[in-house]
Amino acid sequence: MNRLAHEFIGTFFLVFTICVASVYGKAGAYGPLAIGTVLVAVVYAGGHISKAHYNPAVSLAFLIRGCYISVREMFSFMAVQFLGAFLAALLASALFKGEAEVTATQLSVGPALVGEILFTFLLVWVIMNVATAKAVTGNQFYGIAIGFTVIAAIYTLGETSLAVLNPAVAVALTMVGKLSLSQIWLPIAGSLIGATSAVVFFNFGHPSESCSESDESSCRPIDGK
Amino acid sequence: MNRLAHEFIGTFFLVFTICVASVYGKAGAYGPLAIGTVLVAVVYAGGHISKAHYNPAVSLAFLIRGCYISVREMFSFMAVQFLGAFLAALLASALFKGEAEVTATQLSVGPALVGEILFTFLLVWVIMNVATAKAVTGNQFYGIAIGFTVIAAIYTLGETSLAVLNPAVAVALTMVGKLSLSQIWLPIAGSLIGATSAVVFFNFGHPSESCSESDESSCRPIDGK
Amino acid sequence: MNRLAHEFIGTFFLVFTICVASVYGKAGAYGPLAIGTVLVAVVYAGGHISKAHYNPAVSLAFLIRGCYISVREMFSFMAVQFLGAFLAALLASALFKGEAEVTATQLSVGPALVGEILFTFLLVWVIMNVATAKAVTGNQFYGIAIGFTVIAAIYTLGETSLAVLNPAVAVALTMVGKLSLSQIWLPIAGSLIGATSAVVFFNFGHPSESCSESDESSCRPIDGK
Amino acid sequence: MNRLAHEFIGTFFLVFTICVASVYGKAGAYGPLAIGTVLVAVVYAGGHISKAHYNPAVSLAFLIRGCYISVREMFSFMAVQFLGAFLAALLASALFKGEAEVTATQLSVGPALVGEILFTFLLVWVIMNVATAKAVTGNQFYGIAIGFTVIAAIYTLGETSLAVLNPAVAVALTMVGKLSLSQIWLPIAGSLIGATSAVVFFNFGHPSESCSESDESSCRPIDGK
Repeated sequence: MNRLAHEFIGTFFLVFTICVASVYGKAGAYGPLAIGTVLVAVVYAGGHISKAHYNPAVSLAFLIRGCYISVREMFSFMAVQFLGAFLAALLASALFKGEAEVTATQLSVGPALVGEILFTFLLVWVIMNVATAKAVTGNQFYGIAIGFTVIAAIYTLGETSLAVLNPAVAVALTMVGKLSLSQIWLPIAGSLIGATSAVVFFNFGHPSESCSESDESSCRPIDGK
Repeated sequence: MNRLAHEFIGTFFLVFTICVASVYGKAGAYGPLAIGTVLVAVVYAGGHISKAHYNPAVSLAFLIRGCYISVREMFSFMAVQFLGAFLAALLASALFKGEAEVTATQLSVGPALVGEILFTFLLVWVIMNVATAKAVTGNQFYGIAIGFTVIAAIYTLGETSLAVLNPAVAVALTMVGKLSLSQIWLPIAGSLIGATSAVVFFNFGHPSESCSESDESSCRPIDGK
Repeated sequence: MNRLAHEFIGTFFLVFTICVASVYGKAGAYGPLAIGTVLVAVVYAGGHISKAHYNPAVSLAFLIRGCYISVREMFSFMAVQFLGAFLAALLASALFKGEAEVTATQLSVGPALVGEILFTFLLVWVIMNVATAKAVTGNQFYGIAIGFTVIAAIYTLGETSLAVLNPAVAVALTMVGKLSLSQIWLPIAGSLIGATSAVVFFNFGHPSESCSESDESSCRPIDGK
Repeated sequence: MNRLAHEFIGTFFLVFTICVASVYGKAGAYGPLAIGTVLVAVVYAGGHISKAHYNPAVSLAFLIRGCYISVREMFSFMAVQFLGAFLAALLASALFKGEAEVTATQLSVGPALVGEILFTFLLVWVIMNVATAKAVTGNQFYGIAIGFTVIAAIYTLGETSLAVLNPAVAVALTMVGKLSLSQIWLPIAGSLIGATSAVVFFNFGHPSESCSESDESSCRPIDGK
């Protein structure tokens, strides 16, 4: 329950910052910094409780990683992530809708899909390595590594694919009018493909760190507490 | 006494930077970075001595958290925080008043109040998790998490509520003319509501880490030394 | 094999970000931040597996450092680094070539060579100290130190030498037309000279941490693993 | 000897970055970021060897702190710091002198002196706490805390006092024409006053961590090895 509350809070603030700072333009050119810094903060705040997914594609990756989350938990996580994103977009829209004209970016399908796949692959590859690899258990740089990945992604892909990387963010961006409903499939498909590829690759490279060995130090299951 | 001195120094430099870099515009568009970086620095410098509150709303939160601070200590902390902010604003004003025209931002009450409540909730939720949660005792990322929260808050809320999040900063901003006296209640009320909500939420989710168990490792009382 | 895959991924994303964010201008003035943040991320993600070279000049330096890498491994590392850079430049070019006109910067040989030598010296001096010095074994700041060096290098040298510091990046920049083929020798020579000087200097100052003592804690050989 | 070499390298790159990125304007508005990031990098690279002073005012502070450095060592440190700054300014000037017109900033004595004293106080207060306080021995955030202090200082004070904070940097800035010779006393006096005040304040608040107790864990003397 506490884990779900933390997933809700983290996703809410991530999405609220995305909507207000970037979509409604309150941070001007500094939107990516606002988003990256808030992500670093909420990852460090919630990481020890819920592993700080804040992203349905990341929750799916943790399921495939094995032993961090059960199928039922994954769907609970996703539900509160979408709820947090929904409420954040709703509040941002209620507060700032009139102040800036938001027009949906028309994404060019090929580059946008490639971009979303590539950088969600990068994001999940980074997360799997800094948050689940046995060799760096107990490290404290995970928040910086994850947040900085997103800063780089937004600066690099912002114009091309909006650097969504997250199905819950895709819903929020559609709600506030930045992503057209007809293209919402694009970041959703891209992020799920990218995330799945990254975790399959990771599992392939870390065969001895799979769930079956039931080794607490290589893998901290949330399920069985 | 040393704790009070550190609270004074930290709050002084935080507020001096806010006034000079942002209000008097010396940092141009980089004000939020100046404020965030100085906050990271003073949190790391003073954290091991006074827990680096630098904010009456945070001191109130530590009181409600239980066992970190007594009522009497809280008022001493608040007194030196207000004193530090007062002197910083006075010095900044003496040095730079003539160089830039400062006009009070007229805040729109609803959005500003919502913004201050939300992001002070975020700030205190982050602080409680990184500075008091048993699971991450001894972590070294607390300064980055706290400073980055404030960077995100200023970029996101700067235009809407000034992203004050701190009653002592509210007083300073009123002194230098950035916040009108008739609206000073707004960030003060918002930050106290947000901070209280966050710590109540935190305590609810961490029942076994309350003061009553008198466990040194879950809670380092300042009172009884 | 897993090490080579990680070298490939890290170099690929580093070079893709360089090409898209900076060369094709997607990040505008924030290119250096995009490059620096992605480097921090991939160093933290891959460091525990391949030592995160992502740079043939750095692999050469690890060879000279002694005991981290064999000659044969060094050439494998270099091969996948060049392959990653080649594919990243190819993909970036396929996606964005039409959108921005890229003209080769005509480097002034003297300053550019001095700049490349100096800052690759700095980069490798930083890497040797944070990633191989016995006194800071197990530290977690290596990613920040390395990424921040590159941010500083690009801001300082960007106009003078393109701040390449990396033969694989030199190839990629030539492929996308930012570096003329007739000047590609310049960052390659500069980075190899700078890297070699730095590691020779480091070995001179750390005689007791050479390979011959076969001390696991001072030196983690990849070879015999 | 190795310590002196590291002090030389760190100061050289700090000053070279200051001169090229800021004085000769290669980093445009991003000069403070270039300087702050290179400082973080060289502090992490050299901290375990020489304590990474890179600043005569800081070396003086370590002398007053007690047991970190002897008088003779302090003068050796200062000598190589001035030498590094001198050569960095000379090289920067040789490479870029013709490309940008540098005019000496005419500092207003009062504000500039106050600014230099205040922020060197802050810098040394931060350094003493993160690099010498017993309570945070072995921490890894010292580089970030120190580098971020300087970023904040430059954004806040850049226009007022040039945010020199360092007698060796003062010499370099005079050499490249950014600081007039008639005002070089100003940052030198300000930084020495600020540094001395900070360390005296620190020693007063940490009486049990003075040298006399000869406790290795509270104080790592460089002298007696």
